[in-house]
Amino acid sequence: MKIVRDDGPMDQLIRALASLPGLGPRSARRIALHLLSRRDSGLRQLSHALEIAEKEIRSCAICGNLDAADPCRICAAAERRRDQICIVAGVSDLWAIERTGAYRGQYHILGGLLSALDGVRPDNLRIQPLLERLRGHEGVEVIMALSATVDGQATAHYIADRLKGGNIKISRLAHGIPVGGDLDYLDDGTIATALKSRA
Amino acid sequence: MKIVRDDGPMDQLIRALASLPGLGPRSARRIALHLLSRRDSGLRQLSHALEIAEKEIRSCAICGNLDAADPCRICAAAERRRDQICIVAGVSDLWAIERTGAYRGQYHILGGLLSALDGVRPDNLRIQPLLERLRGHEGVEVIMALSATVDGQATAHYIADRLKGGNIKISRLAHGIPVGGDLDYLDDGTIATALKSRA
Repeated sequence: MKIVRDDGPMDQLIRALASLPGLGPRSARRIALHLLSRRDSGLRQLSHALEIAEKEIRSCAICGNLDAADPCRICAAAERRRDQICIVAGVSDLWAIERTGAYRGQYHILGGLLSALDGVRPDNLRIQPLLERLRGHEGVEVIMALSATVDGQATAHYIADRLKGGNIKISRLAHGIPVGGDLDYLDDGTIATALKSRA
Repeated sequence: MKIVRDDGPMDQLIRALASLPGLGPRSARRIALHLLSRRDSGLRQLSHALEIAEKEIRSCAICGNLDAADPCRICAAAERRRDQICIVAGVSDLWAIERTGAYRGQYHILGGLLSALDGVRPDNLRIQPLLERLRGHEGVEVIMALSATVDGQATAHYIADRLKGGNIKISRLAHGIPVGGDLDYLDDGTIATALKSRA
């Protein structure tokens, strides 16, 4: 789709914006005009934030979280429990769990999920670093916080298999009815699982 | 809403993204992670496009269009008609008309619409530059391409009033049924206008 007649800086800006997830040509055009009409508060502020982010944000060598510090603030926090490691697929999952405020342990970010379809194999994920991290740490609880999808469950199963034998407790997020969820709208699989895991 | 625990560069980036039109905290987080996980193709490309846009894109002194050239490519184009000036509220309207390929004249961007509610008065818009631009240009057709809203029609009326007396032809975009529009779903006002302007 031809967005503007020329292929100048405006077109480049719109194309860069339109390639972001969730944005199309129409929203990219709207954002480009917004940025250019508010140069100080819009364009320069975003430009500055991107520059700082590129310079300062890196992956934590321990857990894989993105932070300006390495080790990240979660790994470095003295008040957090060291005997719980929560395995998540990505940083957005870590953020989601942190927002609940219900977890005060460590994390380990896999960087994705095993997937036969997408060709993601164990060495594409941060599984080896996890095994090394757990070596010699007896009595640690590993909490699998992976999606309840085929890929998520296959990944959890694979990791659990690799951890067998060590003195490591493995747990999973409970499956069941979402809080506020209406039974009538839930799929059969969720209801059946909730029934089986009833407490 | 607290997006991440710290107020570091990640939080700043997410806040800058979340302030863009059409984006909220959730999509801003998603975009921030996308950018940081693809530094070369994502973050640096956007950063570069913003930098170039800030340096090169400016308002055309004649029509108010945003372009890397001043006068803009439309004002400078030798093959475009000089006896038609299309009045639009903003650059996005100019783009919308250009995408049709149906217009080969000049533009004049007002930079908004008169609005009693929002306190936009004639001197807040590029109306005086329009009058100066038209001075001495007899026989020019001015095409009002303003929204069919109260503000749009008030602005068109005001400009038409100011242009009275000169040898200037004033026309408006036709009102009627949108192409592909279903009569059943159209409002009464549009149908009544379409009936009155039937041809």
